[in-house]
Amino acid sequence: MKNGLIVSISGPSGVGKGTVIDKLREMFPELGRSISVTSRPPRGQEQDGVEYYFRSKEEFEKLIEEGEIIEYDQYVGNYYGTPLTPLLTMSRGGQSVLLDLTVAGSVALQEKFDETVTIFLLPPSLDELRGRLSGRGTESAELVEKRMAEAKGEIAQAAKFDYVVTNYEVEQAAAEIAAIMQAENCRYERCSDAVDTLLAQ
Amino acid sequence: MKNGLIVSISGPSGVGKGTVIDKLREMFPELGRSISVTSRPPRGQEQDGVEYYFRSKEEFEKLIEEGEIIEYDQYVGNYYGTPLTPLLTMSRGGQSVLLDLTVAGSVALQEKFDETVTIFLLPPSLDELRGRLSGRGTESAELVEKRMAEAKGEIAQAAKFDYVVTNYEVEQAAAEIAAIMQAENCRYERCSDAVDTLLAQ
Repeated sequence: MKNGLIVSISGPSGVGKGTVIDKLREMFPELGRSISVTSRPPRGQEQDGVEYYFRSKEEFEKLIEEGEIIEYDQYVGNYYGTPLTPLLTMSRGGQSVLLDLTVAGSVALQEKFDETVTIFLLPPSLDELRGRLSGRGTESAELVEKRMAEAKGEIAQAAKFDYVVTNYEVEQAAAEIAAIMQAENCRYERCSDAVDTLLAQ
Repeated sequence: MKNGLIVSISGPSGVGKGTVIDKLREMFPELGRSISVTSRPPRGQEQDGVEYYFRSKEEFEKLIEEGEIIEYDQYVGNYYGTPLTPLLTMSRGGQSVLLDLTVAGSVALQEKFDETVTIFLLPPSLDELRGRLSGRGTESAELVEKRMAEAKGEIAQAAKFDYVVTNYEVEQAAAEIAAIMQAENCRYERCSDAVDTLLAQ
């Protein structure tokens, strides 16, 4: 059986990453997703391995030390992170996985697992990005400029990614990412078993 | 401007390479094609650079020495070959080129120009390939077995190619190759200008 792809998409705030990923999940409902690990206690009916993997703060810090956490953040005193092993398990089981990671997260994942396919989502222009950030209406002019500065810093790291897709509109960007996934499944390294099987006939 | 892709497709005799390439040219009429060089004299209205590039035998041999001929063959005492420079000129002019080369030709082209995208077309099975070769009805059982032995030797070289596509049927194979071309156009190395332009805004 062929390993599933691990596809990680990053891009600056406001680029429309969430919408493009939602579109891809609609096109390919079989795509796996990451379940985060958190150190906050479960609430109500929440189950370990469903909404989150629930771990103690100490366990979480041990996972960080072991290199098991691709990226993490702290919020109201609790850790939230993306664990590596479940992604590898899905991939080895033949299921492709689509991830929404920060730029640093995609780069870290590729370092840990070099078969990862990393895609950087670009805005059509910086003006367009500023327009989208301002258009949210919830962010002050000052915050928009802060996000723009962050965006430029992130775009400058696009060279660390395998692919670059410009998000002119959601259907086009999702179709380009779908083509990337289809092409990656045809790379010789992922098809060598098929070739060996054929030659063994 | 972005360089055009140079896409080379190879596969064993009987795999259906010609049909898949015809389908791709129908889908993408803008794709460039190679014009062969020959040492045979022009016939009738044939023009240099249209049907063929016409060169003397000595000139052809000089082109071989210079590494300008990707692959060549001799037929009734005349050379026929695929020249490198016109492909690079089309690519640098932004036009993508689709080529039908032997396995050795694809490998030689990739050595000369490492941006080449090489695709190996596989049959669904060896039985299916034998069926297609026999089905032509023009080839003796002996010749079919000779072609099958050649096919195995060629399939064993698939590891030298970037991509492997199985030709279950022409539409599926052409669609996979179209996805590969779309994905290759999104590779960071081919999009770095777009990123630089964005950052310069």
